[in-house]
Amino acid sequence: MKSDIEIAQSAKMEKIVNIAEKLGLDEDDIELYGKYKCKLSLDILDKKKENKDGKLILVTAINPTPAGEGKSTVTVGLGQALCKLNKNAVIALREPSLGPVFGVKGGAAGGGYSQVVPMEDINLHFTGDMHAITSANNLLAAAIDNHIHQGNELKIDSRRIIFRRVMDMNDRALRNIVVGMGGKANGFLREDGFMITVASEIMAILCLSNSLMDLKERMGNILVAYNLEGGPVYCKDLGVQGAMALLMKDAIKPNLVQTLENTPAIIHGGPFANIAHGCNSILATKVALKLGDYVVTEAGFGADLGAEKFLDIKCRYGELKPDCVVIVATIRALKHHGGALKNELSVPDVEKLEKGIGNLEKQVENIKKYGVPVVVAINKFITDSDEEVKVIEDYCNKLGVKVALTEVWEKGGEGGIELAHNVLSVLETEKSNFKCLYEKELSIKEKIETVAREIYGADGVQYDNNAEKQIIEIERLGLDKVPICVAKTQYSLSDNPSLLGKPSGFKVSVREVRVSNGAGFIVVLTGDIMTMPGLPKVPAANKMDILEDGVIVGLF
Amino acid sequence: MKSDIEIAQSAKMEKIVNIAEKLGLDEDDIELYGKYKCKLSLDILDKKKENKDGKLILVTAINPTPAGEGKSTVTVGLGQALCKLNKNAVIALREPSLGPVFGVKGGAAGGGYSQVVPMEDINLHFTGDMHAITSANNLLAAAIDNHIHQGNELKIDSRRIIFRRVMDMNDRALRNIVVGMGGKANGFLREDGFMITVASEIMAILCLSNSLMDLKERMGNILVAYNLEGGPVYCKDLGVQGAMALLMKDAIKPNLVQTLENTPAIIHGGPFANIAHGCNSILATKVALKLGDYVVTEAGFGADLGAEKFLDIKCRYGELKPDCVVIVATIRALKHHGGALKNELSVPDVEKLEKGIGNLEKQVENIKKYGVPVVVAINKFITDSDEEVKVIEDYCNKLGVKVALTEVWEKGGEGGIELAHNVLSVLETEKSNFKCLYEKELSIKEKIETVAREIYGADGVQYDNNAEKQIIEIERLGLDKVPICVAKTQYSLSDNPSLLGKPSGFKVSVREVRVSNGAGFIVVLTGDIMTMPGLPKVPAANKMDILEDGVIVGLF
Repeated sequence: MKSDIEIAQSAKMEKIVNIAEKLGLDEDDIELYGKYKCKLSLDILDKKKENKDGKLILVTAINPTPAGEGKSTVTVGLGQALCKLNKNAVIALREPSLGPVFGVKGGAAGGGYSQVVPMEDINLHFTGDMHAITSANNLLAAAIDNHIHQGNELKIDSRRIIFRRVMDMNDRALRNIVVGMGGKANGFLREDGFMITVASEIMAILCLSNSLMDLKERMGNILVAYNLEGGPVYCKDLGVQGAMALLMKDAIKPNLVQTLENTPAIIHGGPFANIAHGCNSILATKVALKLGDYVVTEAGFGADLGAEKFLDIKCRYGELKPDCVVIVATIRALKHHGGALKNELSVPDVEKLEKGIGNLEKQVENIKKYGVPVVVAINKFITDSDEEVKVIEDYCNKLGVKVALTEVWEKGGEGGIELAHNVLSVLETEKSNFKCLYEKELSIKEKIETVAREIYGADGVQYDNNAEKQIIEIERLGLDKVPICVAKTQYSLSDNPSLLGKPSGFKVSVREVRVSNGAGFIVVLTGDIMTMPGLPKVPAANKMDILEDGVIVGLF
Repeated sequence: MKSDIEIAQSAKMEKIVNIAEKLGLDEDDIELYGKYKCKLSLDILDKKKENKDGKLILVTAINPTPAGEGKSTVTVGLGQALCKLNKNAVIALREPSLGPVFGVKGGAAGGGYSQVVPMEDINLHFTGDMHAITSANNLLAAAIDNHIHQGNELKIDSRRIIFRRVMDMNDRALRNIVVGMGGKANGFLREDGFMITVASEIMAILCLSNSLMDLKERMGNILVAYNLEGGPVYCKDLGVQGAMALLMKDAIKPNLVQTLENTPAIIHGGPFANIAHGCNSILATKVALKLGDYVVTEAGFGADLGAEKFLDIKCRYGELKPDCVVIVATIRALKHHGGALKNELSVPDVEKLEKGIGNLEKQVENIKKYGVPVVVAINKFITDSDEEVKVIEDYCNKLGVKVALTEVWEKGGEGGIELAHNVLSVLETEKSNFKCLYEKELSIKEKIETVAREIYGADGVQYDNNAEKQIIEIERLGLDKVPICVAKTQYSLSDNPSLLGKPSGFKVSVREVRVSNGAGFIVVLTGDIMTMPGLPKVPAANKMDILEDGVIVGLF
């Protein structure tokens, strides 16, 4: 079997100018980055404002398991399938982060015959967006310490600096550091730490901005620290949001690439799906909606985190109205949710499947609460038995949702035709009545309770002392009337990763509450969230190489 | 008077494909980055190998003074002037670093009517080369700490890790840090520190490599640490040089832009001129020599550092043969070398000029030691008196070198016509007999003595105990048969910044000796060298902005 990179490298890419041309774009609308990547001008939104928006299709999933679900692969495969049916489809995806590429994971550009290309560029520097975010973030961080060093007019409390430096690398040694050593010329000593770039609030802001001026304003509103009197210090108090916006002038433009089957794919932004909202940028989605009749996009993690945030944060700020949600599952993963061990997943087991299917059921129910029609996609494995397939089909019939088996990894768009038909049929017959789950004007606790009860199926929420204090602080500053963004394990509907399937009778424990005031949400942490990964014993980097003829090995 | 950025923004740029086409390049030879920047394929070297190499002209200067000399401006202006004379000239420059742009300095893309454009891009992310270097550097740094954390098979002595992390930002708080805090999951505690990206050995390597495979091999040879037995630990022992080369696959390609007068300018690489050699890349210069009949390039700081390293390090590794050296001076700067204070520079003062001209004289003599013909360029100021100009002319006649007054800042290429005529005349009438100053097989001390006596005019060299030990260590490891790279004040021929003019009767003090084994030189430090700048009280960043219409302000 070919590896992802071998498949990617044997792709027949079209020149990106041709892909752009098919979308009705001319040379003034694009900025080339080599022959197969370009940036899209934001003027397209104005130029094409008379175009009717395309249909917006979100691909999400059950709670992830070690068995793998293939959400990105289905997103790409569905886009390709729609094109095979002669529909004008555009895919909108997140940008992968460079750091994890060198760790365990590899990239995030789909898989098999449903990939975006050129995958090696997309997984390395791409068009430099991550680097621009890193620079803007670290300019602000440098400005904070410089301000203190130069006299500290704002009376920044160096014990209460919230804003951290970032690097797009897996580097555990930087998680907790001391800066400013070496005496007077080198600043004041204090504790600090690095996060990986995608965890930067600037990444979240990029993805929630509706224009460069909006981006600048939001960056200015980042709460970077408290002063010695307990008052807030914002980025704009340091006066560097203009320079930061300058650094982001190209990064704000969405990137256009293509799939293995030459379907246009807009890849832009990729915030963490825990401490941030885990979706590609609003601007990319808006541009895609002006260019495509069908826009297929995805959100991070399972639907309880990814879709919830897509709907309650991204759609709210972007005034987007999703028309259909596809929930991806595999029979193997559902058996895992039903208690099957990793080495039992290939064995047919209707009982465990029926037990685990509750996870899928709950995710379907949840999406229906938003008023958006649902389709289920089952990524087929060779070990799936006919009985098991039948269980799924019967169950979905009972839930009143269409279900399709997909083979997009092995077959590309061809393997997603049934799914595409289902989606098209739903788009024609079922109207979306999208509304957010809660009003952002509710109190912080009311918002948390709503999401915990309605989406996670919890009996309630309990707050650590710390979290109680932080909520009071945020309310005191008047920064509380924004959506919430829950950081929670992705592996369970609950905040306990070992509660699989459809857990009940649990309470969600809130340990910490922070405000991402620039991005415009309140982060609710239900556990420790790692914002700087480490490298494994043998990093993927050690297998990577580029040879004399330019051939790249080991990237996947 | 218009600011540099106003002049740059009113430029009539040609599309870069047209500039490339005039150089005989087709679309397969270039990779566009928008309409006005592209990368050049290294295959050009092979495709054009039958082309005779152009003439190589180095622009250097007297020891810099606060009065300013305008070396980059003359480099650009001379290139433009040659084009005005219908010569096929190409300029080869260094890339500016992002960090200092936000500090005091602004960018490094020439000035006035002798600039390279698009200056805002060149001074911000450009084509991402700096970011690629940052990533490759920090991957290696992460691999070192990860290796120790995962069991430390190589027995790396965490007290003797040489290789540091980098960031392209002025951030004094990162100069001296402690990493690995927070307990077992977060690695081992140790002292560390960040440098600015251009100080990375990877930058020096990029600029001294003759191919991607050469780059990879050199990166593998970086001495990153010592083990607990005192033995060397190289990058290749950690096995990440392949992944690092992958990160550098595009960064190794030279960038093509243009001047305000549409003269082709290849901008690639920009290592520190103290702890590294301060020249653009060998590959950029080689490509330029295949494309242009005349290649105008520059080196950092004054000729005692910049030209010396260009000739003894870059030309040695690149097997380049410079045909002519232009030494830039101003009457104001020479008066400063003669003892004039900053507020006296506008007052005609033949006496101080005659005293200060010794600096120019010594730099001319030095270049002649390499067997390369010299031309002097005097950047004209409105305050220069006729008597002063006459002094310079008489003096150069006595030295037997041609001299031209230039007005390239105010007039662009037109202001450099006389200089261009002088250069062309020298190229026709004087043959270059270039040879390096010393053999790299000499001992470290012999090499240092040679440069100190011959170039700086010192009576000798004295070594700190520390430096003595380090020399012995490097010899013990057998890493000593490479050129030396002296880190010394740029303001004096000596290692004391207050000794202006042509000092004599001094000894050079060597405080530290390090090996940059990947780059292939031994760094000889004569004082403390700052490798991470800080921001000033009011950083330039605070005046920068991008407005709704996309207009950029405050960049210069």
